Amino acid sequence: MLKMSTLFLRTLRDDPADAEVASHRLLVRAGYIRRIAAGIYSWLPLGVITLRNVENVIRQEMDQAGFQEVHFPALLPREAYEATNRWEEYGPSLFRLQDRRGADYLLGPTHEEMFTLMVKGEYSSYKDLPLSIYQIQTKYRDEARPRSGIIRGREFVMKDSYSFDIDDAGLEVSYQKHRDAYVSCFNRLGMKYNIVKAVSGAMGGSKSEEFLAPCSTGEDTYVLCPKCGFAANVEAMVTKVPAGDASATPALEVLNTPNTPTIDSLVDLMNEKFGGGYTAADTLKNIMLMADGTPIAVLVPGDREVDLKRLQENLGGVHELRVFEEADFAKHPSLVKGYIGPQDAAKSGIKVLADPRVAPGTAWISGANKKDHHARYVVNGRDFTPDAYVEAAEVRAGDSCPECNTEIIIDRAIEIGHIFQLGRKYAEALSLTVLDQNGKSQVVTMGSYGIGVSRAVAAIAEQTSDEIGLNWPAEIAPAKVHIVATGKEDLPFDTALDIGQKLEASGITVMLDDRRDASAGVKFKDAELIGNPIIVVVGKALAEGKVEVRVRKSGDKSEVLLADAVSTIAKLLA
Amino acid sequence: MLKMSTLFLRTLRDDPADAEVASHRLLVRAGYIRRIAAGIYSWLPLGVITLRNVENVIRQEMDQAGFQEVHFPALLPREAYEATNRWEEYGPSLFRLQDRRGADYLLGPTHEEMFTLMVKGEYSSYKDLPLSIYQIQTKYRDEARPRSGIIRGREFVMKDSYSFDIDDAGLEVSYQKHRDAYVSCFNRLGMKYNIVKAVSGAMGGSKSEEFLAPCSTGEDTYVLCPKCGFAANVEAMVTKVPAGDASATPALEVLNTPNTPTIDSLVDLMNEKFGGGYTAADTLKNIMLMADGTPIAVLVPGDREVDLKRLQENLGGVHELRVFEEADFAKHPSLVKGYIGPQDAAKSGIKVLADPRVAPGTAWISGANKKDHHARYVVNGRDFTPDAYVEAAEVRAGDSCPECNTEIIIDRAIEIGHIFQLGRKYAEALSLTVLDQNGKSQVVTMGSYGIGVSRAVAAIAEQTSDEIGLNWPAEIAPAKVHIVATGKEDLPFDTALDIGQKLEASGITVMLDDRRDASAGVKFKDAELIGNPIIVVVGKALAEGKVEVRVRKSGDKSEVLLADAVSTIAKLLA
Repeated sequence: MLKMSTLFLRTLRDDPADAEVASHRLLVRAGYIRRIAAGIYSWLPLGVITLRNVENVIRQEMDQAGFQEVHFPALLPREAYEATNRWEEYGPSLFRLQDRRGADYLLGPTHEEMFTLMVKGEYSSYKDLPLSIYQIQTKYRDEARPRSGIIRGREFVMKDSYSFDIDDAGLEVSYQKHRDAYVSCFNRLGMKYNIVKAVSGAMGGSKSEEFLAPCSTGEDTYVLCPKCGFAANVEAMVTKVPAGDASATPALEVLNTPNTPTIDSLVDLMNEKFGGGYTAADTLKNIMLMADGTPIAVLVPGDREVDLKRLQENLGGVHELRVFEEADFAKHPSLVKGYIGPQDAAKSGIKVLADPRVAPGTAWISGANKKDHHARYVVNGRDFTPDAYVEAAEVRAGDSCPECNTEIIIDRAIEIGHIFQLGRKYAEALSLTVLDQNGKSQVVTMGSYGIGVSRAVAAIAEQTSDEIGLNWPAEIAPAKVHIVATGKEDLPFDTALDIGQKLEASGITVMLDDRRDASAGVKFKDAELIGNPIIVVVGKALAEGKVEVRVRKSGDKSEVLLADAVSTIAKLLA
Repeated sequence: MLKMSTLFLRTLRDDPADAEVASHRLLVRAGYIRRIAAGIYSWLPLGVITLRNVENVIRQEMDQAGFQEVHFPALLPREAYEATNRWEEYGPSLFRLQDRRGADYLLGPTHEEMFTLMVKGEYSSYKDLPLSIYQIQTKYRDEARPRSGIIRGREFVMKDSYSFDIDDAGLEVSYQKHRDAYVSCFNRLGMKYNIVKAVSGAMGGSKSEEFLAPCSTGEDTYVLCPKCGFAANVEAMVTKVPAGDASATPALEVLNTPNTPTIDSLVDLMNEKFGGGYTAADTLKNIMLMADGTPIAVLVPGDREVDLKRLQENLGGVHELRVFEEADFAKHPSLVKGYIGPQDAAKSGIKVLADPRVAPGTAWISGANKKDHHARYVVNGRDFTPDAYVEAAEVRAGDSCPECNTEIIIDRAIEIGHIFQLGRKYAEALSLTVLDQNGKSQVVTMGSYGIGVSRAVAAIAEQTSDEIGLNWPAEIAPAKVHIVATGKEDLPFDTALDIGQKLEASGITVMLDDRRDASAGVKFKDAELIGNPIIVVVGKALAEGKVEVRVRKSGDKSEVLLADAVSTIAKLLA
């Protein structure tokens, strides 16, 4: 029983200055976590219990699915990450250090390499597969902007699993098993979530989905179709635009367009010149970008921005993507800044990638590759031909669902899980092979599956808390019942303790506010802030042989006879 | 149920090349741990279960004692460790790193500072005390020589507790509570251990004891009195030598002693000169040392070496202690190397520390501070006076027990726990104060208490394993019962599974060897190597409706009727 008279807990009346989101504010105020450094938190007793409850749900579901738990160190030698190139690729997000002999180490941000090597060390035959192994472990990422308390920390707890199969069909089965186990986990954790398509290009895998917990302060944006249920993160949203018919479009016409440095000024001039009807959507933006040092041109409609993150994920394998700087233009003098069009792209040797909205057969107003000149009637397929199509433009609410054409909505969420068909990338880099039925060596195919365990605590807090405090689902609350003893007499305190003991005897965890020096008002406020699902008040009603039972979530209150207290509470929790 | 047909486990027939101790050898061979780098190991499924079993015993005993669990990050900012000077003091044993902004961090080797700051953040009154809080957490130490597998690793799991009290009497109570809780822990873990006095001088505390698990390959040496039970680590052994009576000793006599560079040659010369009777124990060694850059002279009997570790711990607060090098002698030309005696020490200004064996009133043969000359009848208190006495000489089996004068024995052990009255050192450095009953600010007094959790797994393996394998106490074995199904028919496999299910239904954990492609011999060997306490063989005896039940520890075997199998096993485990 957690007794507040001795519990290492001091709730705070004021919000912490650096807290922007509800979970951060409330977990600090209710005494669950404390900040040690940017993105680095310690857990007080209530936090430890809640975190462990979440961990246990996840562990049980993993075990239930037949996945086996292992445990890796966080301090890892450089070599394996060198072999997969991630020692470099991680850039400044990787914590690197040297030991006393000057050997390079890192703090593991994720353990694909280590799991691959572990299986390589133990297994050698197709008969050993399939295998799914997992760990619940502390991970490290030196985030550029750690924020939102434990939602985006630099040290955090993660459950990471990896599956190993002899072929793609096996991987598909392992992937589906993980997906099912994740559904069970998040259901038991009482979370609202959407399973959302994600881009898998960059990792070389073939399939990837995210579990997103909708939440207005979430950092992830995703697309949801209110009709057919299609869901994708913004990066994985697919744009389906039919080809245009340009058979009746006049020939390309170059226009003198002085003083049109912006899309708006160009549209204004066009409307002035041709009597109206033009909008920004009729113009074509030709954005010059540097992708790992190689210039590319990206075409999007003039009324949309390029979404660099979305573009990068869809390009796959690009580590640095940025817009052209003055120095880049200086190196490509044939590009007339502000007046670039795709018509002469072939000459420059620069690849042209078009967003799907710039569909074949569509006609545009674009730069004419000549200062102070634009062109109209610039037709895709006639006047220019993109080298490839790639999702590049920002996604907006109201865009069309690729499945059913309904207007999609855009929502915010916290990513709580990610499942991923890795394929053979890591197994190849680290030579994980097994002998197949014919005695031939085969590269193993892998999946990688993560749940943010500490983040889930915050995500649940975000989704369930209200204006008065935290509000946990029973499965993960620090205690199922919070008993408040009030008054100055011994009787309510003795009675509260007695009820608590009876509840614990029947397997129901209890937190008991047995503080003699705190007022009833302070105790009620603390109980609401801490957020256990059932609050029992032992006080005035005791004169009539009754206690008050409150349901934290609904606010429902009722007075019940002392003798019925335990059974009433058990029923409410059932 | 752990089924070996799918368990992620490959036992090894051969010992790993780098394994010097039994626990290391067997934990690797039986598939519990794997080496990742020097002193850094991963845990396979059997290892994870065993480690968690040990963790749970410790957690239950801590909770039982009323200590509250918290959890700190391993990645810690430099500042707090700077305030207590440990950022420097730890030297190369501390893993240090920088984040992307160049701020200094460390990987926590122990968390005194962080716990002190946590309590400072929450508490402010004497009414809040006493408090004991703990964590079970991953720690990092960049050991100069990581070895013995998980016994001395660089990443390891530790339970560390800290107590906070208003006064010394309170600290004494908290200390005793921890001591009792440790006794319960180690008893439940089935360990043999001695509680041994340790030196607490260096840390500024007042009392300190170690829990040592006797083990022939242990790195710690300790002293044990077979009569009264006195136990101390070698550093904390106390030498009681009565004062001598030198009233009849002749006056100091300087002798010409050419060609006596060693104690032996000196003793030979003396015996030649004076007709025998002299031994090395009659001579006085005057060892010149550098203690953090300050020269000191240390006197020990000529038949004993200086134990530098012992001396350093007893000096307290000295970080580097080494013998004089040529360069040091060069800086002190008054010291006649090879012929130094304590007689003229006052002149040199160098402090003279005497081991207690060099008692007041005892007479010695020492150097005469002149090349090729020694002196005899050099009396402590007449011809020289040490500035202080300090335990400096090596301890030997047969030395006298300080309590009862019996000859002590010396044994080896693994340190599995350490309890420590820290006092006010950390609270002072980090300004942890509370208001006392009179509203006056008081510095809190602290205790610090550690158990090596991962090390305990190895220590238990050391103490319980035999020539055929691991041999766990039931409380921490990966499974309580290991069922081996043999033969080619389905019947033994089906029967084994059935027994397993019945055992698990009655709360007894089971490992089932249901491999179809392994021989009975391989299965028996694996069962013995893995070390679960009860082995059940389902095979030939099945024809008579029987199974064989073996007790791993005693080797006792008996055939029992199928119907009695579960109850027989339950009785054996009770």
